Amino acid sequence: MAEQQMDNEQKVFDEELLISLLEENDFDTFREEYFDLHPYDRAQFYFRLEPAQRVKIYEYLSPEEMGEIMENIDADDEDYEPLFAEMNPQYAADLLSHMYTDDAVDVLNELDKEQVASYLTIMDKESAEEIKNLLHYEEYTAGSIMTTEFVSIPEHSTVRSAMAILRNKAPGAETIYYTFVINEDRKLVGVVSLRDLITSDEDVLIKDIMSERVVSVSVGDDQEDVARTMKDYDFLALPVVDFQNHLLGIITVDDIIDVLEEEASDDYSKLAGVSDMDSRDRTPLRAARKRLPWLIALLFLGMMTANLIGRFEDTLEQVAILAVFIPLIAGMAGNTGTQALAVAVRSIATGDIKDESKMKLILREAGTGFITGSICGVIVIGIVYVWQDSLFLGVLVGISIFASLIVATLAGSLVPLVMHRFNIDPAVASGPFITTINDIISILIYFGIATSFMSYL
Amino acid sequence: MAEQQMDNEQKVFDEELLISLLEENDFDTFREEYFDLHPYDRAQFYFRLEPAQRVKIYEYLSPEEMGEIMENIDADDEDYEPLFAEMNPQYAADLLSHMYTDDAVDVLNELDKEQVASYLTIMDKESAEEIKNLLHYEEYTAGSIMTTEFVSIPEHSTVRSAMAILRNKAPGAETIYYTFVINEDRKLVGVVSLRDLITSDEDVLIKDIMSERVVSVSVGDDQEDVARTMKDYDFLALPVVDFQNHLLGIITVDDIIDVLEEEASDDYSKLAGVSDMDSRDRTPLRAARKRLPWLIALLFLGMMTANLIGRFEDTLEQVAILAVFIPLIAGMAGNTGTQALAVAVRSIATGDIKDESKMKLILREAGTGFITGSICGVIVIGIVYVWQDSLFLGVLVGISIFASLIVATLAGSLVPLVMHRFNIDPAVASGPFITTINDIISILIYFGIATSFMSYL
Repeated sequence: MAEQQMDNEQKVFDEELLISLLEENDFDTFREEYFDLHPYDRAQFYFRLEPAQRVKIYEYLSPEEMGEIMENIDADDEDYEPLFAEMNPQYAADLLSHMYTDDAVDVLNELDKEQVASYLTIMDKESAEEIKNLLHYEEYTAGSIMTTEFVSIPEHSTVRSAMAILRNKAPGAETIYYTFVINEDRKLVGVVSLRDLITSDEDVLIKDIMSERVVSVSVGDDQEDVARTMKDYDFLALPVVDFQNHLLGIITVDDIIDVLEEEASDDYSKLAGVSDMDSRDRTPLRAARKRLPWLIALLFLGMMTANLIGRFEDTLEQVAILAVFIPLIAGMAGNTGTQALAVAVRSIATGDIKDESKMKLILREAGTGFITGSICGVIVIGIVYVWQDSLFLGVLVGISIFASLIVATLAGSLVPLVMHRFNIDPAVASGPFITTINDIISILIYFGIATSFMSYL
Repeated sequence: MAEQQMDNEQKVFDEELLISLLEENDFDTFREEYFDLHPYDRAQFYFRLEPAQRVKIYEYLSPEEMGEIMENIDADDEDYEPLFAEMNPQYAADLLSHMYTDDAVDVLNELDKEQVASYLTIMDKESAEEIKNLLHYEEYTAGSIMTTEFVSIPEHSTVRSAMAILRNKAPGAETIYYTFVINEDRKLVGVVSLRDLITSDEDVLIKDIMSERVVSVSVGDDQEDVARTMKDYDFLALPVVDFQNHLLGIITVDDIIDVLEEEASDDYSKLAGVSDMDSRDRTPLRAARKRLPWLIALLFLGMMTANLIGRFEDTLEQVAILAVFIPLIAGMAGNTGTQALAVAVRSIATGDIKDESKMKLILREAGTGFITGSICGVIVIGIVYVWQDSLFLGVLVGISIFASLIVATLAGSLVPLVMHRFNIDPAVASGPFITTINDIISILIYFGIATSFMSYL
């Protein structure tokens, strides 16, 4: 009952016990308790320790055991530099060489270049070569997230020999549930699942049970496209090939979950106008540094808006009441533009949008802007008329809202589509930018109409 | 070469050939070509057909074959009602009973209640029972996304008999790569992977190789927490238990990817002020219906802002230039509040935030607001002084920006934290709402200061 409750609350280990064992230098009991934990929990414990306690961990654990811990952490979430700096360099190099290559590369990408170079020099040659190869792939490509620890079997093997290969390779391979089949030229020709293998007769040839229509990705493909393929087809692993269809590596589903989270979080940050959010930004100074570039850029855009209104100072001096509706009109334009932007960015990100339907999306957004603009415009006319007892002012504000909403909706969808066409990540057209641009447009519309018809006010 | 290119472009099937085979009623060749496709591609093809063509598909495919297609589609992405309405009810019921229960439940949740009830009546009893059980679980809980097609083995089996059970159950089970171990009371006592099974001696007992520290989730747990557990531990399947630790079902990683996408997209939509975005909103009317509730609510909030400024009409009439900076100040407050909101919502969503560190987050945001406010304030003083040649106006706008940024940053982080404390989804505090509230606060600050010191202008 106690244990079940622990499970339910996901509090699966006793942190205080482990720390006291560490403090008491009770090596054996500590190892016993510690290795009873899932590697993810081992990692959680390690990352919460003080530097002096971590030094003991390095004494108690072999580089291989430490490598297993590091594999279970999303490299983006932690600050590795101080951790590696406090380790003996040979220990660090051994640790890295024992990790799956894709995970080792993730960690190395967080360290500085000199550190990386020094580890690669003292590491065993084979691991260093594999890691160097992976480090060459551009960030955010299939190559940069694949692992080279996979099992491949020749197409002329039998199920029996394939199972023998799998049993033999199981401890080192990242997954054995999908096995990729290659021909004599090491080209990818098929895939067979462990499910197929264990339900087939042992004498059957692999090429007779494998699926030949294997979905693969190219080493240079964008990781987001890879993630989408994996998600759509519900695969647990995808093969990565070069342009001649040679099998280079595999990508497993756990890495894809991290990619999907990263991309979603990225789109979200940009909509909010924060350059990559990061759980490590624990000080106000670091947080401010991430937000200030956006704020200062927006400040200058905002000054342009101010300048624009300044040109209508004469109008304002004569009819001060006009100023009252500036935030309403600008705000509505900003909100509606953000809505349209978000819909367009998501349509592009999820691949829902094909080239031929861009025109459709724009027409739909124009229609949506017309509907929302008409309804909000009519409401505004009513409210302003009742409140200010001026039908003209009501109509002026209402028409400005109507026109602004149509233009803002179109701007919100056109900008990301145009960026996508020119291969710029549409999420860069962040929410605050669209909002500020729509502020400017809506104020132009409002004061343009007001100044033209001012004699009626 | 041609085939490889096809793979790279993910254009893995010849849609036109399949359609022409369908039109020519070439039953045999159609089936041959069609079943050569991955079920996901079969589904893609089916969903793109015209109604008249779909009728032929129902003739050509058994309910079981059709069920396999439906399983491969994320139920949120398609409009199932017309599809099921055009099928023979018995065919539809058979189709549903052949699907994995979790997928069948996903589809049934998209249909109307009467349709669901009629299918459950004509469906075979066993499937109907299982589906009814799952339909009882509340949406967004572990129970609502689990499947009951799992393999469990008694703890006293040998590896040999466990493998026999797996081989036997493989065709119907959603995954066989993780097998959960139960005792005589059907309580969950361990987990064993297929990797462990194939690398162990056949006479070994399961209870000697199973891992006893099995991480499980409760049937009523929030699906978001389940997803986070699966992601952190890199599991391929998680067991779902009731409060007495009886094994009820399993959740597989492919369902978790859908949950993560759904939740990310949900947070994103709310930041943009669009109630759940949906690829089915293909008409302006449907799109407008999703956005209007937000826009109208914001319109009324915006009217409050207008009313507020109206109270300073006297000030405005005397110093019209004040109006020029309204959008700048309101805009900066809105932007900075959205940044703080996004950071807080993400910290909560990713579980980075624990109860004890809420105070820390607020203090950090206060510090961040102070830094960004000071820097932006000083820049503004400089620009306004040079532009308007009035140091007093510069200082007035600068101090308003400084104060607004601090307050807006705090509001942006406090609101979601307070909502979280009261168990309201913090993402509901959407970007536009925070923006509009910060508009109001910043304008109060600006006109408050301006009115107090107006004699100096």
